[in-house]
Amino acid sequence: MAMRLYTYYRSSAAYRVRIALNLKGLVYEAIPVHLRTNEQNAAAYRAINPQGLIPTLTEDGRAIGQSLAIIEYLDEVHPEPPLLPQEPRARARVRQIAFAVACDIHPLNNLRMLRHLKERLRQDDDALTVWQHHWMAEGFAAIEILLADSPDTGRFCHGNTPGLADICLVPQLYNARRVGLDLAPYPTMMRIEAACQEVAAFAAAHPARQPDAE
Amino acid sequence: MAMRLYTYYRSSAAYRVRIALNLKGLVYEAIPVHLRTNEQNAAAYRAINPQGLIPTLTEDGRAIGQSLAIIEYLDEVHPEPPLLPQEPRARARVRQIAFAVACDIHPLNNLRMLRHLKERLRQDDDALTVWQHHWMAEGFAAIEILLADSPDTGRFCHGNTPGLADICLVPQLYNARRVGLDLAPYPTMMRIEAACQEVAAFAAAHPARQPDAE
Repeated sequence: MAMRLYTYYRSSAAYRVRIALNLKGLVYEAIPVHLRTNEQNAAAYRAINPQGLIPTLTEDGRAIGQSLAIIEYLDEVHPEPPLLPQEPRARARVRQIAFAVACDIHPLNNLRMLRHLKERLRQDDDALTVWQHHWMAEGFAAIEILLADSPDTGRFCHGNTPGLADICLVPQLYNARRVGLDLAPYPTMMRIEAACQEVAAFAAAHPARQPDAE
Repeated sequence: MAMRLYTYYRSSAAYRVRIALNLKGLVYEAIPVHLRTNEQNAAAYRAINPQGLIPTLTEDGRAIGQSLAIIEYLDEVHPEPPLLPQEPRARARVRQIAFAVACDIHPLNNLRMLRHLKERLRQDDDALTVWQHHWMAEGFAAIEILLADSPDTGRFCHGNTPGLADICLVPQLYNARRVGLDLAPYPTMMRIEAACQEVAAFAAAHPARQPDAE
């Protein structure tokens, strides 16, 4: 049965999964879930993803939530091309970078958090920008060191083929540009992002190229 | 060479790794890093973990940060007993629950976030408690559904042996108790936590039993 991806064009977690699906050459049906109109909180969507978060991948009636769980699943079931290197320490390095984005940057800045800060903590737009810049800059500074200081870094985050770390980094950089973060302090990340943008799988996953883009 | 774990007794991310090391029966040297006195931001620690976050595992002079990257590494290098099931969809289910904690609950409530809310956003102690209850309750409600509604749930989050999801859940519940969250709405989680507490590997990893406990 065909895979379905519940996605939103600007969701950076969905963007990660779109890149992974494209790198694997997998065909999927995109089901847009409109975050701005809160479709993710409707009972129909909560029934397949109790967190009410994007994305969800369904296949044969079974649902997987959490973008990194989906991507690890895709890599296990469709091993070519691999999204993680073979050697365990190399895999750990790639996952460390991926989690630095997926745990310590993105959930602090996604739409549900920004809404919470605005509605519950009465933060204004300027404060929200300061907040986002703070967490992105803190995370990016560490990732830049991990990339710049390592002989394992190649054209991409690990070696010369794109993988899980690049899949997390590129959507987070898209978010950073949207909020006007100065990216000059991260030259290694910028170089890797440019390399990713030349890969068709990344380009086709870009928010602006999704059917639900506004 | 011996493994070293840079740990802090109350860090729930370090607590996860301690459980995993214990389940694998691995001997390690615990190096306490005192979060309350900001040792994690000292240059010496930042040199092995540029994020300045706990935990870090070092082995043969190489460092791995991010608790879930460490645990996946341990599971790959020391496969017995496995912390993930064999079948890819089952692995995805376990990772989904683990990431629901590690991405969407814990980073919103850890010490660096609470300090930020207090110092930058001038939130008082009551507001910090409301904040923590909010994100924990939101995440736990979804996890309770994932556990209660699935035939894959057994004595533990997945089947009858403890694994990655339990490793993430138990430390998060420890945090929830510390801040007085009402756990009555999560009977399946409570039942699984009780089962985990009977396992020596979990008990020995508890914050109160660490050498740096105050």
